[in-house]
Formats: sequence, structure tokens, C-alpha cells
Amino acid sequence: MDAAQKIQVVEKYLLAVSTDNLDLIREIYADNATVEDPVGTPPKEGIAAILAFYGSFKGVGVKLTLNGAVKCAGNAAAFPFTAQVGPRALDVIDVFEFDKNGKVVSMKAYWTP
Amino acid sequence: MDAAQKIQVVEKYLLAVSTDNLDLIREIYADNATVEDPVGTPPKEGIAAILAFYGSFKGVGVKLTLNGAVKCAGNAAAFPFTAQVGPRALDVIDVFEFDKNGKVVSMKAYWTP
Repeated sequence: MDAAQKIQVVEKYLLAVSTDNLDLIREIYADNATVEDPVGTPPKEGIAAILAFYGSFKGVGVKLTLNGAVKCAGNAAAFPFTAQVGPRALDVIDVFEFDKNGKVVSMKAYWTP
Repeated sequence: MDAAQKIQVVEKYLLAVSTDNLDLIREIYADNATVEDPVGTPPKEGIAAILAFYGSFKGVGVKLTLNGAVKCAGNAAAFPFTAQVGPRALDVIDVFEFDKNGKVVSMKAYWTP
């Protein structure tokens, strides 16, 4: 999986969250993926828990925008972005790890609560 | 360990690398720490290997500067920075994990080779 393919998944992810597109979320994550958002909280384990997590944002109007380059290294990508919810903006770094099928198998979100 | 303490370690780290200060590097890392830089390469394991790694930059004139906020979550901190070496600038995200003594026990560096 080259850098261009990883960046494509990251862009798909930002779009999925920004448009409440759970079909796209399902396409991005592996069935056995984990999501830890923010790091230090109990991870969501498996695609059902992950879809429930993203489903809980539905209608909130979250918009995600990259604010720096996507860094691709090994089986991972780290990317800095802004999560805008109405007038509030949160500065976040996410780290994706990919499996051999190009699916995200681990997501960790770093932001200061 | 609160966010302010983690940020202090990050700032100490940027200073240590920018001034070739291996004493400071030794102060920051736990004896059993690992450094994976970039992610996907064999990690440096233990303080001796880590000091040898940073020692190899000696005299190269690397300058590290934050280019976004330090994100503190759980036992971790993620921070985006620029590594300047002469006319070349590399955009990097590092993730630190801290042990109970406030030492960095894992460092992962994400940058596109």
C-alpha cells in the first residue's frame, strides 16, 4: 500500500465524517478494527461498535479539514486536522494503521480534552 | 502526569535534538524505551541504542520547531513539527508514550520517506 493509497483513505475518512456517511465508514474500517478516540478512553472494538460511535455524531454537523500534510510511514498514516462543530474548532492528530487489505485496523485520536 | 508536564517534556526534547544534548535525551527517555523513526523501520530498543541513534545526528545541525499544538491524551502526546537540516525541511508527527515516572517509554515518528 503506497502513500497515495493511504492519503486516499484519509481523504475518504474526512469526507465520511463530514457528511455522516456510515457506508463510507464501513468501507474504510476492517471488521475487527479498533477506534480509540481520544487515546486513554476505552476503545471501540469491531465494526458494529465503530458504526455506533460515528452514528452518534449524525446531525451534529462535524466538519473535518486537514491542516497539514498526511505523514505515511510503514503500515501507518498520521494526519493533523481541525474538527469544526459550529463555532468550536478542535485541533486533532489521528493515526491510522492499515491491514494487508488496505483497511484501517486501528485508529487512535490524539486531542487534549 | 498532566498536559503541562507532557508539553514540558516535548519542549525539552525539541531543545535536546536541536542542540545535540545527549544528557537531556537520556533524561527524557526511560532505560527500556523504544524509538521507531520512521515507523516501519526496526525500533531502537533501550537507552544505549537510543543514545547511539541521536548521537549519529551530532554536528548535522538539525533544528526541530513545533508547527502546531501538542495534543495530550491518556498517557501520550502527539506533536507536529518541522525538522530543518540546512535548506531541507521535513514535516513530522511524533507520538510519545509516557511511563508512570514521566519518562518517554515509546517514541514513534511519522514522516513520508
